[in-house]
Amino acid sequence: MSTPLTLERLNASPPDVAAKMLDGLYEHTPWIAGQAMAHRPFQSLAHLKHTMAQLLNEAGADAQKALICAHPELAGKAMVSQTLTAESTNEQQKAGLTQCTPEEFAHIQQLNADYNAKFGWPFILAVRGPRGVGLTKRQIISTFERRLQGHPDFELAECIRNIHRIAEIRLNDKFAAEPTIGQQVWDWHEDLARHSDPGFAEQGQLTVTYLTPAHQACAADIAQRMRGCGFDEVNVDAVGNVVGRYLGTQPEAKTLLTGSHYDTVRNGGKYDGRLGIFVPMASVQALHQAGQRLPFGIEVVAFAEEEGQRYKATFLGSGALTGSFDPAWLDQTDADGTTMRQAMQAVGLPATLPAIQALRRDPTQYLGFVEVHIEQGPVLNELNLPLGIVISINGSVRYVGEVVGQASHAGTTPMDRRRDAACAVAELALYAEQRAAQDGDSVATIGQLQVPNGSINVVPGVCQFSLDLRAPNDAQRNALERDVLQKLQAICTQRGLSFSLEETMRASAAPSAPAWQARWEAAVAATGLPLHRMPSGAGHDAMKLHGVMPQAMLFVRGENAGISHNPLESTTANDMQLAVDAFSHLLHQLATESFQAF
Amino acid sequence: MSTPLTLERLNASPPDVAAKMLDGLYEHTPWIAGQAMAHRPFQSLAHLKHTMAQLLNEAGADAQKALICAHPELAGKAMVSQTLTAESTNEQQKAGLTQCTPEEFAHIQQLNADYNAKFGWPFILAVRGPRGVGLTKRQIISTFERRLQGHPDFELAECIRNIHRIAEIRLNDKFAAEPTIGQQVWDWHEDLARHSDPGFAEQGQLTVTYLTPAHQACAADIAQRMRGCGFDEVNVDAVGNVVGRYLGTQPEAKTLLTGSHYDTVRNGGKYDGRLGIFVPMASVQALHQAGQRLPFGIEVVAFAEEEGQRYKATFLGSGALTGSFDPAWLDQTDADGTTMRQAMQAVGLPATLPAIQALRRDPTQYLGFVEVHIEQGPVLNELNLPLGIVISINGSVRYVGEVVGQASHAGTTPMDRRRDAACAVAELALYAEQRAAQDGDSVATIGQLQVPNGSINVVPGVCQFSLDLRAPNDAQRNALERDVLQKLQAICTQRGLSFSLEETMRASAAPSAPAWQARWEAAVAATGLPLHRMPSGAGHDAMKLHGVMPQAMLFVRGENAGISHNPLESTTANDMQLAVDAFSHLLHQLATESFQAF
Repeated sequence: MSTPLTLERLNASPPDVAAKMLDGLYEHTPWIAGQAMAHRPFQSLAHLKHTMAQLLNEAGADAQKALICAHPELAGKAMVSQTLTAESTNEQQKAGLTQCTPEEFAHIQQLNADYNAKFGWPFILAVRGPRGVGLTKRQIISTFERRLQGHPDFELAECIRNIHRIAEIRLNDKFAAEPTIGQQVWDWHEDLARHSDPGFAEQGQLTVTYLTPAHQACAADIAQRMRGCGFDEVNVDAVGNVVGRYLGTQPEAKTLLTGSHYDTVRNGGKYDGRLGIFVPMASVQALHQAGQRLPFGIEVVAFAEEEGQRYKATFLGSGALTGSFDPAWLDQTDADGTTMRQAMQAVGLPATLPAIQALRRDPTQYLGFVEVHIEQGPVLNELNLPLGIVISINGSVRYVGEVVGQASHAGTTPMDRRRDAACAVAELALYAEQRAAQDGDSVATIGQLQVPNGSINVVPGVCQFSLDLRAPNDAQRNALERDVLQKLQAICTQRGLSFSLEETMRASAAPSAPAWQARWEAAVAATGLPLHRMPSGAGHDAMKLHGVMPQAMLFVRGENAGISHNPLESTTANDMQLAVDAFSHLLHQLATESFQAF
Repeated sequence: MSTPLTLERLNASPPDVAAKMLDGLYEHTPWIAGQAMAHRPFQSLAHLKHTMAQLLNEAGADAQKALICAHPELAGKAMVSQTLTAESTNEQQKAGLTQCTPEEFAHIQQLNADYNAKFGWPFILAVRGPRGVGLTKRQIISTFERRLQGHPDFELAECIRNIHRIAEIRLNDKFAAEPTIGQQVWDWHEDLARHSDPGFAEQGQLTVTYLTPAHQACAADIAQRMRGCGFDEVNVDAVGNVVGRYLGTQPEAKTLLTGSHYDTVRNGGKYDGRLGIFVPMASVQALHQAGQRLPFGIEVVAFAEEEGQRYKATFLGSGALTGSFDPAWLDQTDADGTTMRQAMQAVGLPATLPAIQALRRDPTQYLGFVEVHIEQGPVLNELNLPLGIVISINGSVRYVGEVVGQASHAGTTPMDRRRDAACAVAELALYAEQRAAQDGDSVATIGQLQVPNGSINVVPGVCQFSLDLRAPNDAQRNALERDVLQKLQAICTQRGLSFSLEETMRASAAPSAPAWQARWEAAVAATGLPLHRMPSGAGHDAMKLHGVMPQAMLFVRGENAGISHNPLESTTANDMQLAVDAFSHLLHQLATESFQAF
């Protein structure tokens, strides 16, 4: 290995020399590094990586396919792994593909053949994976099998994303710039994910619902980890939230509140919620290791319950802090008939209203609330951006509905005499789709759709559907809702149908507090990355805190098209590192502001 | 009662006198009869009835609502039935509404109130019903309950249709023109419907599937009834068809083949198939009673199996006559594991291929095949026409398909980054709807539609659907199919989705033989009714015979929007009478043609 590169040398060298330094990042495709040199100076490796990704993006599909085809096939790699270049051997050794059985090798060869036949280019996978230590053979083969099912457009983009990830890992190697804190945060997630509710754990699934033994084990782990990071006070509160406090320089100083939830949906991902606990913990750990205190306290709360899986009591953990714990929840039963009160008592919580109501925070004692969260959507993944700034948590409204027409014989009922309930819902679906698209950042979804007991030869007399409408502010959500419902009425009037609708959920938008959003923007800018502002389509604990104090969120890119509530949910150690960097920046900027204010 | 009216008197009297003769047909609405007089002379009562229905149709919705509102409420009728006019009392006595309990009366009052509140006019029902002998209290109340659920447009038309039925019954009374043969045919259906398969019969359902005891009882009843009608030969053949032959004047004369099926779908109607057996039987009965023989034989076949319910062997009965009995069918098993061979043996059929193959008819011995069938669609019902002439049995093709996109979070996936499988199928449904409508007589139906395991907050990744396309000729069906499938491809390409399609059925169109269609047209014209030519959207036994001899069908209006494969399937004794009149006309015209030809 040569001596590690530095950004200073890269920025200072003549273009051709600098480009040469990046040789081998992209397989037989030196033009990417070459063109990137015109964009110097690079503020950070993240800046350099994003610049190269953008250049390839602008080069178009043909250039992208050429790059993909410059990569050897995975099966070839498995066979000739002894003859690969230093970097490649390094990659191979860290992955699990060097020890293939003949059967596995044959299977990979078949996958390769099928993949090439379907897409016309070789399968690309960053075999060192999101942590950089290598995927297992099983992971590689199952990813191959899964991606073989995808659409060509998506798969092309996914190959390019994997190539960028390979380049990123190679760049880390060249610059000896391991994302060590990101890797540590990655490992914390991995470690916490060993706890799962019985029945799910056996199937290899991650499921942690409110107050189960796995949930309690998570709480204990998080509390212990907080103590290890150097938090001054760590306790589990009356609803099971794990609260860590890192004191400021002045005892009377206000506190920055942050955190997210540690419960999961059934068969969920490892990062949803937990990333927003561990990222601030890593920043506090860094302060503690440096012996630093800030002019304000930091309170990291690992919320016990956000997903509402065991009990229909979403945002229970954050709701307890805002005084919106519903007393009726205590008498709710789970699927086994256990009340929440009994579940609390069983784990040693007081299970009394006064104890819970005492958790309510006095907003005057807090600076505000910030939350880091995995995006749970495809936007950052598609834009090759590790971080995004949330402008608002979307307001939403949900309905379930039914259109009723007249079931009739598909052969004998002329088109002009039909009362087809499904065609009406089809019209609604297409209207909702284009109406939401008009706004740019509204979304409308018909996720449930069915003709009950439909027959191939019967004109649908009934069609059931759901409707989910969201927008970054309530006025925009309301306008979308009004238009969609008016359209439903118009469709049914025009077609001679009737309909019923039931509203099942309505939540106000939670726009980010401008000052706090600006702090996140400064923090992201400090990483060298371009800013991308976006609404949050999903609900988060920050929605609850929004009711009592200013809040703003930071999104971290999700891999696999941002899939969430799914075991495929993922991000990378590099992205986690950037999230910690951004969080630490926010802390230090806040300290500077506080210093200036006092 | 005054002496019965005659058409001669009505046609010959001065307009105001003639109109006065029809007083009371339409409740407090003498203008209908008044205007009708300009259309004299009437060829038949059917002609008069249709003329009046047309006049009201042209008068528009306001005039129709005024007529509806001229009728007293049903609850009022029930209460004051002692004080009604002669006709009304007659109607009341024949219906079951005079003996209401206080609870029933209160329930009817509530239905009246709900109905008026929903529609703004009183509920109208021809309480003497399709047979003219009166509906039961239970029938009246359940019809009321059902129609309360309908759409206002449809319910307005349904009230008007009931008013025309009331007028028809009153006209029958005035002219002492009871449709006695129609009533007899009605009674034959009623009598045959007492046989139903076990399990279904207990629920009051009509279900007669191949070779069950109920099916065998039907065969025996039909055979006995044929003998009673004067058929010369009656037998049950090797597949269970009941074959009746009424010989012609010459033993070597060719034979007219007619008939339809006596099996039913599960929980089906009483008229589907059976009408095409009983109508020709009534015509033969009339010939026999008049001691008449025609210069050709008449062979009425009650086909044992058309619906393919117990075994997947549709058109088994008619197929045996055309040599298309599939030998593999004998080894098919029903839901209980009984093979068709075993089922045949159990009822004493030979169950051998030679015996079945011997049923194949020699087409040179036949003039052609005609079939009377209930429409099973809404067209004649909407047009106030008792009879319709079939121009073709539509060709059809069916598919089941699946569009695959990418399931993703409904909140976090922007509209421009979705691969929504359901929106693609929605687009297909609307395209198929408008494309079929372009042809006028093609139909396209997506009868099955579902997002499997859809969630309110998940963009549909998969959407399953069925596709049923039909047209009066194969070229038109093929063009429709080509356009719809091309559109599916275009939608999926444009949206970045994939799809799969499986063809599950394809049947060629069976256009009516022009000479035979012309005979039906002459027969309908002879009833005084306007001609309405229409395709048959459903398949019929005539499709099978189409392969070996000329065929043409006559449709009879279905009540209740032509609903079929449903216990609500119905027609009226008057319409049955007209069908028998038309069938007899066809026989006599054929006799005349034969006489001229010889």
